[in-house]
Amino acid sequence: MKQIPNALQMSHKFLLEAVGFGDKVIDGTMGNGNDTLFLAKLVGKNGKVYSFDIQKQAVKKTTELLLKNHISLENVNLINESHDKINEFLPTNENISAAIFNLGYLPGGDKAIITKPKSTIPAITSCIEHLIVHGIILVVLYYGHPGGEEEKDKVLGFAENLDQRIFNVFTYSAINEINEPPILLIIQKRK
Amino acid sequence: MKQIPNALQMSHKFLLEAVGFGDKVIDGTMGNGNDTLFLAKLVGKNGKVYSFDIQKQAVKKTTELLLKNHISLENVNLINESHDKINEFLPTNENISAAIFNLGYLPGGDKAIITKPKSTIPAITSCIEHLIVHGIILVVLYYGHPGGEEEKDKVLGFAENLDQRIFNVFTYSAINEINEPPILLIIQKRK
Repeated sequence: MKQIPNALQMSHKFLLEAVGFGDKVIDGTMGNGNDTLFLAKLVGKNGKVYSFDIQKQAVKKTTELLLKNHISLENVNLINESHDKINEFLPTNENISAAIFNLGYLPGGDKAIITKPKSTIPAITSCIEHLIVHGIILVVLYYGHPGGEEEKDKVLGFAENLDQRIFNVFTYSAINEINEPPILLIIQKRK
Repeated sequence: MKQIPNALQMSHKFLLEAVGFGDKVIDGTMGNGNDTLFLAKLVGKNGKVYSFDIQKQAVKKTTELLLKNHISLENVNLINESHDKINEFLPTNENISAAIFNLGYLPGGDKAIITKPKSTIPAITSCIEHLIVHGIILVVLYYGHPGGEEEKDKVLGFAENLDQRIFNVFTYSAINEINEPPILLIIQKRK
């Protein structure tokens, strides 16, 4: 074995197990497009990725990344809107097997533009409404930036209160690092 | 995907990745022998499992379990001693790829006999001394019993202070359960 996975790598391990060909999935934070690309490969030509970002730069970068990787844009819906608008873009009866969020700011982008709990939590809630049984929501919580700590506390507080009869909720994170390593939050609909 | 793994199941997933044929490994808490059996299968005929428990009942049960599963006792050293005696039973230059501890009391046994930080932490420290690069120590922390909370805090406190340049230290645990679900602590020697 090499180094054990960090939070981000572990999120992809969970996606690999949860997402299959033909699935519908959500990337709640398009960013530089890495997760959208990863998901597009997993769901294939019969699947669909709904990917959200309020920043035009994210849509531009992600479009380029997808084209470079020969991913058909027919299967990927790049939506230049806040992820709290998920319900406006997903058909009501559309069921998703997974959603992923990378909270914080866009790497390489404007650090003043950050995700905030007042839109993050409604976005996660929308994903839960569309989630199939055994489907998962992965949230990579970066919190080293101003405002990050508040978001982390609110998102974890929200997740801790999800009914254990209906949801499995786990965290995975490094605990011996001086800086603030990201925390992976895993929410699964258990029945 | 089915239910995502709980802490105990995740410990086995890590062992599967970290342990290969011929490896030397430690089961720090023999208990009912499930981890010793799992490890014995992973290391095979050229490997060795050193397994510790202060309770005679554990050695008896584990011997039975191994024989029932046709595991040669030549490859498994069942040691009826505290795990803080690891260094007395392991050759000084013996390198291990993994160690596992299930802290708390023996399931189905005497609940008054519990693991305690004054022996748990020296035992983990001994394992670290014998650990190969990329080798891992897995600690499943049960803490719902009297004395469990203190052990959890001390063991996690010890792990948080392991130098991040030398060790990867992660936790994986459920966060939405009313009772005290176990916490999986993962310590990896990174270089």
